[in-house]
Amino acid sequence: MSSMSSLFMKTPSHANPFHKTPINHNTNKPILTRVSTRVIQPTTTRGVKTRVRCGLIEPDGGKLVQLVVPESERDIKKRVANDLPKVKLSRIDVEWVHVLSEGWASPLTGFMRESEFLQTLHFNSLRLGDGSVVNMSLPIVLDIDDVQKDRISGSNSVALIDSNDDPVAILNNIEIYKHNKEERIARTWGTTAPGLPYAEEAITGAGDWLIGGDLEVIQPIKYHDGLDRYRLSPSELREEFEKRNADAVFAFQLRNPVHNGHALLMTDTRRRLLEMGYKNPVLLLHPLGGFTKADDVPLSWRMKQHEKVLEDGVLDPENTVVSIFPSPMHYAGPTEVQWHAKARINAGANFYIVGRDPAGMAHPVEKRDLYDADHGKKVLSMAPGLERLNILPFKVAAYDKKQKKMEFFDPSRAQDFLFISGTKMRTLAKNKESPPDGFMCPGGWEVLVEYYDSLAASDSDPVKYV
Amino acid sequence: MSSMSSLFMKTPSHANPFHKTPINHNTNKPILTRVSTRVIQPTTTRGVKTRVRCGLIEPDGGKLVQLVVPESERDIKKRVANDLPKVKLSRIDVEWVHVLSEGWASPLTGFMRESEFLQTLHFNSLRLGDGSVVNMSLPIVLDIDDVQKDRISGSNSVALIDSNDDPVAILNNIEIYKHNKEERIARTWGTTAPGLPYAEEAITGAGDWLIGGDLEVIQPIKYHDGLDRYRLSPSELREEFEKRNADAVFAFQLRNPVHNGHALLMTDTRRRLLEMGYKNPVLLLHPLGGFTKADDVPLSWRMKQHEKVLEDGVLDPENTVVSIFPSPMHYAGPTEVQWHAKARINAGANFYIVGRDPAGMAHPVEKRDLYDADHGKKVLSMAPGLERLNILPFKVAAYDKKQKKMEFFDPSRAQDFLFISGTKMRTLAKNKESPPDGFMCPGGWEVLVEYYDSLAASDSDPVKYV
Repeated sequence: MSSMSSLFMKTPSHANPFHKTPINHNTNKPILTRVSTRVIQPTTTRGVKTRVRCGLIEPDGGKLVQLVVPESERDIKKRVANDLPKVKLSRIDVEWVHVLSEGWASPLTGFMRESEFLQTLHFNSLRLGDGSVVNMSLPIVLDIDDVQKDRISGSNSVALIDSNDDPVAILNNIEIYKHNKEERIARTWGTTAPGLPYAEEAITGAGDWLIGGDLEVIQPIKYHDGLDRYRLSPSELREEFEKRNADAVFAFQLRNPVHNGHALLMTDTRRRLLEMGYKNPVLLLHPLGGFTKADDVPLSWRMKQHEKVLEDGVLDPENTVVSIFPSPMHYAGPTEVQWHAKARINAGANFYIVGRDPAGMAHPVEKRDLYDADHGKKVLSMAPGLERLNILPFKVAAYDKKQKKMEFFDPSRAQDFLFISGTKMRTLAKNKESPPDGFMCPGGWEVLVEYYDSLAASDSDPVKYV
Repeated sequence: MSSMSSLFMKTPSHANPFHKTPINHNTNKPILTRVSTRVIQPTTTRGVKTRVRCGLIEPDGGKLVQLVVPESERDIKKRVANDLPKVKLSRIDVEWVHVLSEGWASPLTGFMRESEFLQTLHFNSLRLGDGSVVNMSLPIVLDIDDVQKDRISGSNSVALIDSNDDPVAILNNIEIYKHNKEERIARTWGTTAPGLPYAEEAITGAGDWLIGGDLEVIQPIKYHDGLDRYRLSPSELREEFEKRNADAVFAFQLRNPVHNGHALLMTDTRRRLLEMGYKNPVLLLHPLGGFTKADDVPLSWRMKQHEKVLEDGVLDPENTVVSIFPSPMHYAGPTEVQWHAKARINAGANFYIVGRDPAGMAHPVEKRDLYDADHGKKVLSMAPGLERLNILPFKVAAYDKKQKKMEFFDPSRAQDFLFISGTKMRTLAKNKESPPDGFMCPGGWEVLVEYYDSLAASDSDPVKYV
């Protein structure tokens, strides 16, 4: 990731980049962006020493939650954990501890208690003590079974341990309440059909109780998979954006390889932001790093592919930050896209690019998409707590056979365009065929071919998530 | 219904009854009640002519929606309707037209368009143009099938007709959008299990499209069942409360016969409101009058029973208004109770009594209640748009065998209490047995026995709702 930023010195002191009022393109109303007024550094313009006030969008609740205990307290917390009743975490649970620990879900300070769980299920939002509302659309909960519940009995805290029995965190001031799985699934996904990947993996077989409380995380969550350097916390991302003196941050959530249509969209978004008067819009290219379904391309391969895309110059490293979003994936469409957007506010993004059918998938039983392709975008634009986020609807790009490159779809010459679906892309890569020139940079395509090769070599289905 | 109120003259001019700040008992925070400042009438205190400002809680959106066209326009609207494409209404559809026409769902001005439908499903609330939020938890929608959709084609308005083909209303500026029934059911009920009474009656077999728009209702909806006099609109109820100079209105939603436990609760609520400093709390005893499931006691019998309860002096007619709430019943627990509460705000109620498991029922497939008995109360206290409504949790009453009357349950002498369930009550009435003395006033009980007698006489199950 490049450092910089020379632009900072060019910015005159009166040009607080947030003095302009961005417009919500869904309502055509100005968006009031609360700006933190932290003084970044003194600078000098025309010989007069002044201070540039600059700032990223405020985190939800006004303060970024950070739940990892200071290094000096680690040993004592481990000893405390040792004496507490234990709850073993699944890999998805650890991913949620990671998410919570770094404040992606600010102002949540731990796994949800019942009040937060109910507000999430019914209202996709939480009301704070001061009456303000933040978005919260996915339950971030920890389940326990009857035996664990009995073992915890009267304790006020529990230790959360990983698969090696090492303590990960302490959950304090716990509250145990019923886990109505059917209701949770119905209200989160809008269906209870069997075959929802997250539900099958993490809910159907889960315990009948949920345990909420405040987390103390013993040390930063690391995966030691060679990708930890990409896992910047919201705090680190904010630091990076400030270092680059970003005056707009636009986030792009993805869980697929990047093709030139994506690149076109991101480049075009930057162009539009510059036209709006921003001086230094920075792209947060933010692949999802937690649980994904078995037929998605695994994170390690996606990251290799993203690296190539940057190496091949498809995106400009000067104004692009590539980082991993540690959340598990629900595939819950309009409900989940709110979470994806909200978490990026906490990382400093004030623009969010929303695609067609975000977080959608095929209905697990019926022959149709689970969600209406437009609902994600619509629900996002109406969601409580996201009013200050600028929603940028995805423009559809397709392969333009005339220009031999990816281009925004122009319905007036529809016959010139070729839509290359994910399935088509996978089939080509599996068969080592090449996509049309200009669909994806050659380096990126090679990574995909290599991935499907590795699958064929192991003569097995994609590795099941465990 | 008694008129009155002599109390008005006793109220000194400075004693605006809403100057006190009521407390939300769930949060222990004061509730800010927006008060309309309409001047009711001039009065005289100590020889000085002053004006008493008085007012009920404001309707949602600030203005009570009323959609029945003036009588002078009826004929012309009928002629207009005659020339429009027609949509035939089911009985439940007509009930919703009734609900909408009188402003129970203010600020809705007709069947929901997609934006309102999505906000209802995802957020249980609607954001208004001024950024304020009103509660709206149940979809109020009208379905059409493919054939009807084709027939409507390019028209901007449609006529809604009843089972006799008589025009009921015109729906203007229509919007047609997809009716994803599975998602609607899952997000409304938190289950998709077969056997939900409203879903079976009105959704499962419904068309695949919804049609929203603005209603012009040709004449007030009447049922000619001898009960129309009980069907006061929100506007008429507000008039009645103002006539009685109510300074607090507490609403009690019910769809069952009233027993002395209910009466105790209502009397006790009035006592508590007087203690809080209100001078004239009025009870809105508000049985639900629309669609109910087959084994509920039908409205006509319930109304007979409620009349007896008032005749027998169990409730004081001086400070009780009995009226019918025209909404159909969803049995959607925590989601529906919000609708029950919100609609009563529009009718002028600023206190709402919430029971155990409100709008709940047995799970249609599994052997358990569909909802956690406490969730309705909790969700209601957290619901967006209901912040200004005082939620009064129901205190559990049971039959006190020692005192031989209904009394609030006292866990310290649990053995003295007898819980008489709805099932037990029905069994007793069916077998013409008497409940314990003091459970229900004798006149009310006779009505119930008569009802079950009539069922036995017709040797059939309770009349199916058609």
